[in-house]
Amino acid sequence: MRRLLILGATGSIGRSTLEVAALHADEIEVHTLTAFRDAGGMLELCRRFAPKRVVLVEESAATLLRKALAAEHSHCEVLSGVEALNEVAGSSDTDVVMSAIVGAAGLLPTLAAVRAGKQLLIANKEPLVMAGRLLMREAAANGACILPIDSEHNAIFQCLPPAYRCGDAPKGVRKLLLTASGGPFREWSRERIDAATPQEAVKHPNWSMGQKISVDSATLMNKGLELIEASVLYQVGDDQLDVVVHPESIIHSLVEYVDGSMLAQLGQPDMRVPIAHALAWPQRWESGVGGLDLAAVGRFRFETPDLNRFPCLGLARAALREGQNAPNLLNAANEVAVSAFLDGRLGFYDLSSMIEACIDAGLQTHRAAADDLESILAIDAWARRWCAGRLSTQEPLVNA
Amino acid sequence: MRRLLILGATGSIGRSTLEVAALHADEIEVHTLTAFRDAGGMLELCRRFAPKRVVLVEESAATLLRKALAAEHSHCEVLSGVEALNEVAGSSDTDVVMSAIVGAAGLLPTLAAVRAGKQLLIANKEPLVMAGRLLMREAAANGACILPIDSEHNAIFQCLPPAYRCGDAPKGVRKLLLTASGGPFREWSRERIDAATPQEAVKHPNWSMGQKISVDSATLMNKGLELIEASVLYQVGDDQLDVVVHPESIIHSLVEYVDGSMLAQLGQPDMRVPIAHALAWPQRWESGVGGLDLAAVGRFRFETPDLNRFPCLGLARAALREGQNAPNLLNAANEVAVSAFLDGRLGFYDLSSMIEACIDAGLQTHRAAADDLESILAIDAWARRWCAGRLSTQEPLVNA
Repeated sequence: MRRLLILGATGSIGRSTLEVAALHADEIEVHTLTAFRDAGGMLELCRRFAPKRVVLVEESAATLLRKALAAEHSHCEVLSGVEALNEVAGSSDTDVVMSAIVGAAGLLPTLAAVRAGKQLLIANKEPLVMAGRLLMREAAANGACILPIDSEHNAIFQCLPPAYRCGDAPKGVRKLLLTASGGPFREWSRERIDAATPQEAVKHPNWSMGQKISVDSATLMNKGLELIEASVLYQVGDDQLDVVVHPESIIHSLVEYVDGSMLAQLGQPDMRVPIAHALAWPQRWESGVGGLDLAAVGRFRFETPDLNRFPCLGLARAALREGQNAPNLLNAANEVAVSAFLDGRLGFYDLSSMIEACIDAGLQTHRAAADDLESILAIDAWARRWCAGRLSTQEPLVNA
Repeated sequence: MRRLLILGATGSIGRSTLEVAALHADEIEVHTLTAFRDAGGMLELCRRFAPKRVVLVEESAATLLRKALAAEHSHCEVLSGVEALNEVAGSSDTDVVMSAIVGAAGLLPTLAAVRAGKQLLIANKEPLVMAGRLLMREAAANGACILPIDSEHNAIFQCLPPAYRCGDAPKGVRKLLLTASGGPFREWSRERIDAATPQEAVKHPNWSMGQKISVDSATLMNKGLELIEASVLYQVGDDQLDVVVHPESIIHSLVEYVDGSMLAQLGQPDMRVPIAHALAWPQRWESGVGGLDLAAVGRFRFETPDLNRFPCLGLARAALREGQNAPNLLNAANEVAVSAFLDGRLGFYDLSSMIEACIDAGLQTHRAAADDLESILAIDAWARRWCAGRLSTQEPLVNA
């Protein structure tokens, strides 16, 4: 019986993980759940999945939950604070950790889990983009087994050779090919995209996702971050990575081998599929998701991504080639820019301009590659301050 | 250094195998080549690939080749006769056998290779359809490792779980899904197909193949035989097998897992890809074939096969469900019917009518399942005689 910890249990990935785990209660135990401050959501999860322990980062939310659980005579332990999050992530009483905290906030607990040598299911891409070298080095040093959950990276993992493990360089592989839906603006002109509202940007055609990742999908920055994530997980360079637009989002990604074979993973756009794959690996478990009727789908389309209309993808590729601190700067600037776009403070193409300017400035001031946690967090903080400063001065932003 | 024997070296698969082997001369040696009677073709292969030994089944062709090789001071040994074919197939001086003889003629040497515990690359489907149980039983008993070359079965093998070996029942798999190009008559009406000529039937849209397999592709019998082949190789029943028409022939087949994942193998329609996969397995080798530019392909289409216009597929599924001697009868009757169609003695839909009638008659007269070679060959011969008799009486054939 393996014991499961979910970092970010009240989010969409967290809930899907619980759905799959509940189907296999004889093989995996829901042991610890964490969330930021959603006491109501966590109470509901406690009732349904009866974890042994819960963390709510916000103290006031934890207090609320403690009272509610006490009233129900629950024996569930409730911890609070950021420290508690990192402690449970590295604690020896769980075996499998699902890392599903959105954004850079996931880095510290993810690192704690890796250092404790857990089986780590990683659904949040930011820690890998910010601190990829550090995480992979610590995983190798501590025997942590990383399994990707992001649908594209999980697809690639499923298509890599039998003995392949994340952090190795794959043998016999020519190329990794990430598919992109193209987002809600795939067929829009640059002029129309330029005037796009946050409401238009978050309407993803195929997946139901949070706001931040939906904007990333509209700018194709999501695919750019995934390129960087893939280069970290699979130890390949920019020359072995490519993106193809596939509006149906049914092929989740592909691996091309030196013999000309391409292997692809396909399926319904439902995160329970990669979650079940990683929870069961190297076995296979029912996920509650059915197969796909290809004849009913009828067709798949493929297109080359347009870097002119979607400059964020080009920025991410440039950051990948640049290496060093560029991906960390890109990620931090993007988080601030997306937030400003959602608040109506930046237009669609101002977003990429600000990210590009932040990376340029950051590479000037931070020349040495940050490889330890403190330096990585310092660069992340520097980039956020730089972007906040730029936004506060209301300096007119030049469209790229 | 592994030593390679190719049964059917002068054919299309044989030549492609030699092309791939030549790219990896430091890892595999072209040891023995066999053909039926193409002395000129074999002489050319001897000059280029310098095998240690050659078999030409026809004595007169062997004599011609011996003289030509002697004139060139070659040390290549030349054998002749059907017996020599079976002897070299089971001989201990080779390790890897490519079985690429078209039709039922491949059964005996394939069986000899299996009994000698070779690594058997199997490109001809007829032996598996005729004598699947026998071949798989002998493979298991003698430690022969079977690797499928047919593009669909090779695709499925590539998509099955890491530790999977042919003859095992795959774990965690919901369904195997074979793709079909739909053949040259995919968009034709039943009336137009009814009047189709042999010349029209052999024009395959995507693959360049021999006449027999081209007609099988036009009738979809090829896909039917592949369903039976898949059930033998992968130990699954009719309920776990499906066919989807995919006119671009780029996805070569798929495996659906219980978690909702589907894995697919894609690539150029070039047999060097599956050949390189099987020669290198479990490694990967360069095949001389490039990858695929999905954006240049642009789209994949998928359709449900139409059993009304293509009754042979329905006949094959019925034979698969029936089991026992039905697949053997189907295969023999189909070989005679295709030959008669190519000679202009049968119309397109007469072909399926004759096969169906032959199976019905054969199941009445051969109730016990044939499991030994003699009984299998006797049923094969019976079906061929039955069809020849029906053709010779010129009894009017009723269209299905």
